Amino acid sequence: MFFASDNSGPVPPQVLEALNAANTGYAMGYGNDDLTAQVTAQIRTLFEAPEAAVYLVPTGTAANALALATLVQPFETVFCSELAHIHEDECNAPEFYTSGAKLTLVRTGDRMTPDTLRAAIEAEENRGVHGPQRGAVSITNVTELGNVYSLDEMRALCAVAKDYNIPVQLDGARFANACARLGCSPADMSWKAGVDVAVFGGTKNGLMGVEAVVLFDPARAWEFELRRKRAGILFSKHRYLAAQMQAYLQDDLWHDLATRANSACDLLRNGLEQAGLRVITDDHANLLFFEAPKSLHDALQAQGATYHLMSGTEEATIGRLVCDWSIGREGVSEFLNTLQKLL
Amino acid sequence: MFFASDNSGPVPPQVLEALNAANTGYAMGYGNDDLTAQVTAQIRTLFEAPEAAVYLVPTGTAANALALATLVQPFETVFCSELAHIHEDECNAPEFYTSGAKLTLVRTGDRMTPDTLRAAIEAEENRGVHGPQRGAVSITNVTELGNVYSLDEMRALCAVAKDYNIPVQLDGARFANACARLGCSPADMSWKAGVDVAVFGGTKNGLMGVEAVVLFDPARAWEFELRRKRAGILFSKHRYLAAQMQAYLQDDLWHDLATRANSACDLLRNGLEQAGLRVITDDHANLLFFEAPKSLHDALQAQGATYHLMSGTEEATIGRLVCDWSIGREGVSEFLNTLQKLL
Amino acid sequence: MFFASDNSGPVPPQVLEALNAANTGYAMGYGNDDLTAQVTAQIRTLFEAPEAAVYLVPTGTAANALALATLVQPFETVFCSELAHIHEDECNAPEFYTSGAKLTLVRTGDRMTPDTLRAAIEAEENRGVHGPQRGAVSITNVTELGNVYSLDEMRALCAVAKDYNIPVQLDGARFANACARLGCSPADMSWKAGVDVAVFGGTKNGLMGVEAVVLFDPARAWEFELRRKRAGILFSKHRYLAAQMQAYLQDDLWHDLATRANSACDLLRNGLEQAGLRVITDDHANLLFFEAPKSLHDALQAQGATYHLMSGTEEATIGRLVCDWSIGREGVSEFLNTLQKLL
Amino acid sequence: MFFASDNSGPVPPQVLEALNAANTGYAMGYGNDDLTAQVTAQIRTLFEAPEAAVYLVPTGTAANALALATLVQPFETVFCSELAHIHEDECNAPEFYTSGAKLTLVRTGDRMTPDTLRAAIEAEENRGVHGPQRGAVSITNVTELGNVYSLDEMRALCAVAKDYNIPVQLDGARFANACARLGCSPADMSWKAGVDVAVFGGTKNGLMGVEAVVLFDPARAWEFELRRKRAGILFSKHRYLAAQMQAYLQDDLWHDLATRANSACDLLRNGLEQAGLRVITDDHANLLFFEAPKSLHDALQAQGATYHLMSGTEEATIGRLVCDWSIGREGVSEFLNTLQKLL
Repeated sequence: MFFASDNSGPVPPQVLEALNAANTGYAMGYGNDDLTAQVTAQIRTLFEAPEAAVYLVPTGTAANALALATLVQPFETVFCSELAHIHEDECNAPEFYTSGAKLTLVRTGDRMTPDTLRAAIEAEENRGVHGPQRGAVSITNVTELGNVYSLDEMRALCAVAKDYNIPVQLDGARFANACARLGCSPADMSWKAGVDVAVFGGTKNGLMGVEAVVLFDPARAWEFELRRKRAGILFSKHRYLAAQMQAYLQDDLWHDLATRANSACDLLRNGLEQAGLRVITDDHANLLFFEAPKSLHDALQAQGATYHLMSGTEEATIGRLVCDWSIGREGVSEFLNTLQKLL
Repeated sequence: MFFASDNSGPVPPQVLEALNAANTGYAMGYGNDDLTAQVTAQIRTLFEAPEAAVYLVPTGTAANALALATLVQPFETVFCSELAHIHEDECNAPEFYTSGAKLTLVRTGDRMTPDTLRAAIEAEENRGVHGPQRGAVSITNVTELGNVYSLDEMRALCAVAKDYNIPVQLDGARFANACARLGCSPADMSWKAGVDVAVFGGTKNGLMGVEAVVLFDPARAWEFELRRKRAGILFSKHRYLAAQMQAYLQDDLWHDLATRANSACDLLRNGLEQAGLRVITDDHANLLFFEAPKSLHDALQAQGATYHLMSGTEEATIGRLVCDWSIGREGVSEFLNTLQKLL
Repeated sequence: MFFASDNSGPVPPQVLEALNAANTGYAMGYGNDDLTAQVTAQIRTLFEAPEAAVYLVPTGTAANALALATLVQPFETVFCSELAHIHEDECNAPEFYTSGAKLTLVRTGDRMTPDTLRAAIEAEENRGVHGPQRGAVSITNVTELGNVYSLDEMRALCAVAKDYNIPVQLDGARFANACARLGCSPADMSWKAGVDVAVFGGTKNGLMGVEAVVLFDPARAWEFELRRKRAGILFSKHRYLAAQMQAYLQDDLWHDLATRANSACDLLRNGLEQAGLRVITDDHANLLFFEAPKSLHDALQAQGATYHLMSGTEEATIGRLVCDWSIGREGVSEFLNTLQKLL
Repeated sequence: MFFASDNSGPVPPQVLEALNAANTGYAMGYGNDDLTAQVTAQIRTLFEAPEAAVYLVPTGTAANALALATLVQPFETVFCSELAHIHEDECNAPEFYTSGAKLTLVRTGDRMTPDTLRAAIEAEENRGVHGPQRGAVSITNVTELGNVYSLDEMRALCAVAKDYNIPVQLDGARFANACARLGCSPADMSWKAGVDVAVFGGTKNGLMGVEAVVLFDPARAWEFELRRKRAGILFSKHRYLAAQMQAYLQDDLWHDLATRANSACDLLRNGLEQAGLRVITDDHANLLFFEAPKSLHDALQAQGATYHLMSGTEEATIGRLVCDWSIGREGVSEFLNTLQKLL
């Protein structure tokens, strides 16, 4: 009953098989191998973006920070949700990679809206050299509180950025889960919506540690490559990143894994609601927040359910449940059965 | 006949087996898993350093840059060989991670000597605030030109650093090869010689991408952890780094792999010298530089030998041959036989 | 009728006289001159801080950013008012000087309170390496909206910082005005209240461009000197900074200038309130914000009153009036007379 | 007999007069005053560069570092003399302002030659992402050892940079002295020779602390302004920088001061050579290095001559004599008379 994170489950067997298969003979280092060429071509195809520059990096934090550093100058600011991972959970990585750019928080909790985003951009009004300049907008889909922006919402946020002529970066830690939930294509959720640089995350969705950064405008591709190297993020034995991605792309494994995680979360939501508990997340993909008495949380955890608690009171404390690809119907059932017995 | 790099061969089967074995059930993320605890304890034991702080990172560049950033301030300078990887081949990663510290090159080609190191440190004379301050010394063993510093040489270099009260970082990309060549223990080659922070490299010696950074003084361990996270280098699914290292440590695989690579290089050197070619590297471990007419290099490469050429003339061009753990007696024999036929 | 800024008036004659007097013979460069030694000693005396390290820098932005860079690490965050100059008006200078630290905004408008400061620090809860670490608190007195924190308020804010064992920096752009308003000593308003590093601003209060940074704990004095040099802020002909400060200290000119500016602002406030206009600033020193119909602002400006308008409506638009040391009773009277005629 | 530095003398009376004259009434802050507009226009005229962007900053280190930061990316390197002030004497300011770019030293002592510059650029060969990229060339005229590059030499160095399509920055600490010595126009010594960004230094040549940065291509002017603000270098009371520059430009005071300093140095050189001492500097402007027995230096200094000694032996120690604008014929005569008596 492990619902603490989608960073904690095993990887599917296809990943290990691909690593095995790739582990033969010599391969050029630093991304100059055939497998890397193959998977980056596949990603361009998947995103219907034949001109895009595609790079593999090992972590989501590096993916986000490198993408932002390629888009913004040190004297600029990035507009993002006040709960954004880049603000809350990356220990100043964006500030590090951008050489000191700022993050300006859009003050509407988890989701930005076109209005609140616009207000934040407007508030960073034109004060000449005194304030930071408007640099980029960063969107996360699925959001930190587990919500999925619809395509209309994505398009509307990107349209605001375009009004100010600033680019949009998509933090794609749970790109696949959002995509599967929306039933849309990767292109729909990225450049067709107005995204300039997308992260096609693999780590939370079943890989050991690979994210693809997709720059739809390749003009700054070379700069990205230099920044990646300078950050110590360029793998010499790059085929082992590529092999993981190969497995991820094969037969749309990425989509399959995300669908499994989302379906598990559907079951979970149903079970919680049937048990009379309030689910706070509106439009979930593979994670949700729910409210329960502290004593119930304690009892669940005593029975072996592993998940994080947020702040709250005795009567109503919020818990976060994350379904990874591997939790399955059984994992959810075990949790719900345990819950049932405790009610 | 692949002698271009020790970044291009496959990983030994034990690594994949360890990944397989680790791929079961849930594990806490970000290095809080049991396997990570186990391998870092093993490394402390291996280095006879029960107090040391040990961290896994995926690349050698990140290992070096993080280690230096933990040791030096932005207004300081790092003394290193003028051919050091941190200067030549990391696209300003040390400058990035240290927020703009300088590298001061010791001007004696590949190897620093106590005298040339001292001269460089002295030249960065005490000019108050005007020049950069003396920050650290960085040593690489095996060096860029393939030479192994003896323990006496290591101790003498570290003693110079100690004279100026500055710490020593060891770039350990080929730590295992040097250690195997010297027949010494990891402790001998690091803290017993005067090293403050060592990189115990795994990537060039058979892993997919894992290096251990060993801080013998744990005082700045927490700072290291924060810098690692800020750099986007902290793996969420950390067990897959730990598993590789587990395989590497098991039955001293690290030593075995390095010995294989070194032995292959011994054969290679013998063969080259018997063929009347000049080997430039004095004290080789697993790579060497040799001189041959350009036409001979061309003929070798036409026959399928893969390796890098340095600058040179028609009569004498320098080639670099690197033996990785997997090249084996057969790989070397094939090369030498090919050479024999061309003479 | 110039009320736009306290950066726009002339300097008092004493400053030019001091420059003249200092302009004779040779003087050691880079702060090693006698005059610098003299004025830094005077500042230590003024602050009753015989151990303090004192440095002169030419701008307030440099003073703040250097002070913060000496106090916080790149992976930390600085807690400050959401309107703080360091956040709003320094084009990411703190992020630059600290190599990418973050600013965490205390969300209570202009003034922080102990409760809101504590809440912000608590919200940057202990999440291990994931979030930025708690670095420092930055207080501004007089605040951006013109309010003077009382000594009790200062002490209470500093006490919160001490609860979390983080240092306090005082942005002292209008230090003198606050000090004069409070009728307290510089020591009262700084280290006696719990401030670790204070900026004793001179530029807004009559100098051409000199601020003194006072580090009450000299432990990091040398680091400050190196950071100042590295930032290109160390004046070679340092005596011309020192001479200005000499004039500023002579016969408490700094206090006299601030008192003049504050008194002008008293008159202004009285006049506005007698005219039935709402003054928004509660506890003013030398600047205030007031509300008036947009048409009245327009008419005042058409008559030659120079000041900034904030956002607002036709009925109620906010204007900012700043009294510098030179505006005098006449300047204020002229403004109030003009206002009177327009009502 | 003060020959230690051109940072230690008084400023000419015209500078104080200009400060006095400027010290009246209100002036817009941050460079938006009339005087700033006037002097920047004058500098454009002086440089025959009507399109150039011109900015005033208070120190030479800031001028150099800002100029370089505007020209180079963090993953690039700047080619400069191994004795360059930006390398030796700015405590890593270029690395700070450029967010971690490197300096690559041209290894021919004081002066770069086209051949040695080309060799250094070539050595930073094209190794893809591994090494730093070629960023800019920085030239200093007058050099650190007091030599004046001829216009032909300047043009030849710039031509090498152009061959590699990288811009040239001119460290102009003693721009005026070189210009006066060469009898050329500012345009000749800058853009007509191939310089992209020049520093028109004032501080060493008689101002309290003002340098003008001249960007001949204004494309990155706005970026320069933002970087200047971000660095805390933008003066709020900007008129006091502008006033100094106004005095400097009036009746070519800058040229007159430099000529005085150079002429004093001519006398000095003659005197030293007539005394049988070896002058090391080939093509001096206002400073020179000369060789003498250590005992003679000691005797001179005991008599009150103030200047720096470099390393050397008892028989031959090198001394550096710098003539500032104010030393005059009398200052030099006093020194030479003292010398005469000691021989």
